Amino acid sequence: MRIVSTMPISEKYIKPVSEKYDFIEWIIKDNMEEARPWLSKAEIFLTLGFDTLAADIEKAEQLKWIHVLSAGVDQMPFDVIQNKQILLTNTRGIHKIPMSEYVIGVMLDHVKKTLFFHEMQKKKTWERRRDIGELYGKTLVVVGTGSIGKDIAHKGKVFGMHTIGVNTSGSEEEFFDQIYSRKDLNEALSQGDFVVIVVPLTQETQNMIGREQFKAMKENAYFINIARGPVVKEKDLIHALQSKDIGGAALDVFTIEPLSSNSPLWTLENVFITPHVSGVTASYTQRAFELFVKNLEVYIEKKGRYINIVDLERQY
Amino acid sequence: MRIVSTMPISEKYIKPVSEKYDFIEWIIKDNMEEARPWLSKAEIFLTLGFDTLAADIEKAEQLKWIHVLSAGVDQMPFDVIQNKQILLTNTRGIHKIPMSEYVIGVMLDHVKKTLFFHEMQKKKTWERRRDIGELYGKTLVVVGTGSIGKDIAHKGKVFGMHTIGVNTSGSEEEFFDQIYSRKDLNEALSQGDFVVIVVPLTQETQNMIGREQFKAMKENAYFINIARGPVVKEKDLIHALQSKDIGGAALDVFTIEPLSSNSPLWTLENVFITPHVSGVTASYTQRAFELFVKNLEVYIEKKGRYINIVDLERQY
Repeated sequence: MRIVSTMPISEKYIKPVSEKYDFIEWIIKDNMEEARPWLSKAEIFLTLGFDTLAADIEKAEQLKWIHVLSAGVDQMPFDVIQNKQILLTNTRGIHKIPMSEYVIGVMLDHVKKTLFFHEMQKKKTWERRRDIGELYGKTLVVVGTGSIGKDIAHKGKVFGMHTIGVNTSGSEEEFFDQIYSRKDLNEALSQGDFVVIVVPLTQETQNMIGREQFKAMKENAYFINIARGPVVKEKDLIHALQSKDIGGAALDVFTIEPLSSNSPLWTLENVFITPHVSGVTASYTQRAFELFVKNLEVYIEKKGRYINIVDLERQY
Repeated sequence: MRIVSTMPISEKYIKPVSEKYDFIEWIIKDNMEEARPWLSKAEIFLTLGFDTLAADIEKAEQLKWIHVLSAGVDQMPFDVIQNKQILLTNTRGIHKIPMSEYVIGVMLDHVKKTLFFHEMQKKKTWERRRDIGELYGKTLVVVGTGSIGKDIAHKGKVFGMHTIGVNTSGSEEEFFDQIYSRKDLNEALSQGDFVVIVVPLTQETQNMIGREQFKAMKENAYFINIARGPVVKEKDLIHALQSKDIGGAALDVFTIEPLSSNSPLWTLENVFITPHVSGVTASYTQRAFELFVKNLEVYIEKKGRYINIVDLERQY
């Protein structure tokens, strides 16, 4: 049984698994280019998700299971996976820790004027200001109430925030004081001091946040996108920031990445940019591999339930 | 009954109280200088704590109660207050929200490399890095387990941190996984990925953190002082940072404030400086005045219990 990976995985993680299942042939590569020649005889394929072409899957005649070592499957070739009835699983669920920490961090930086004080420090200037805000008592709107959204709401509650969630059905979820269904998105957005976007990118969520949504937000709303760039109409976002329809933004994802040096986003006032790192953590590989191993046990021993099967119809 | 304040308080907060107790003469000034001439006939005195001299209290012949509109009473003239048997209360307890938010914020900035990404943004540079940390699983040592320390530990627990508290007696406190007594300070410090100082400044706590304590800390420990400058031997702190005995620091308080532009702290690597603002919030005056009004009701109606009586022996 051959397992091919397009992502390096430390020998120390693989060793206990290969001792347990000594019939596995592990082909661990640094990227898709190096992994490609090994795919034709692979039974299990570990990929980063954005590096896999339809032709790769087409040629992999023995392939039965693809496990994506990230949460985003929006760039996977769904047609061929569905045709070949390949099992598709992903690594959602392990991102909630770094991503909820990221969101609380950028919200605190916004109210606490962190970057202002950093600039003052560089000038060796002691400048107190009285307009320092708090998260306490503020309203946090989270669009997407999956495991990451719930963890953000959980932390928000401990900071004394009022939490509003938006999901497809409007069904209640833990840690949210209120839930709105997707059709009432604008009403939910209108209440947020902070608006966090954390939905998967699908046909339904693409371009979900545009001019109308920014108009619905409070004029001091702080907008945070940790989902995927194409969920937001980037031109409308830039316009909303320039015309002060909203108060600011922390952006980790963009329509085209890396973000072009020509983008006005880099220099807009009250915009904080990070290079798609909200889910990154030094603990990532370990957690991702642990999740894969749990699924591998189900695959080999044919008992138990897979974690994170991707619905090939809904594509997440 | 005359009430004199050295801090401006909005008419909207005073109005409902003056309607209820119409016998009060309110003398609300912007600072001690303006308030001083009115003190001789004051019965109640609202001060910021650092602006009041022994001579001021000596001359205030009708003074029965001083309420300090901050938590720090270390600069109050205790001898004369004790001699004249004046009631002393302060505003501790309302700082826990801004201060615990401050601490979580600077810890997240440290692990998330916030200032690095801010500098990259200014250069329009997309530079991903994989060494982003988390609060999750880290050990948080809080020296001082009062209301602020407990609130920091409470939030730390929700981030999945292991919380260790240090207090005088070593007695258990909510939200702390472990408690050490003051005599085992160094042992507690040796375990912290983060060390937060949040004790009142007293004769016992002055110079509490020096060379020996920094030596006891982990070499990547991140040190946070939101207490008072003199709790820490600033020269030893600078030495510990320069010689990399510790990993970095967020400092809101200093031996002499404002911090001199000659201080090496401004430019040390991995040091974040704020100008004594960790307790500042736009909601401060309102919360501080609400607490005073509760005490005022006890004072006038002679029933109930005062909040935050300062122990004149222990001086906090």
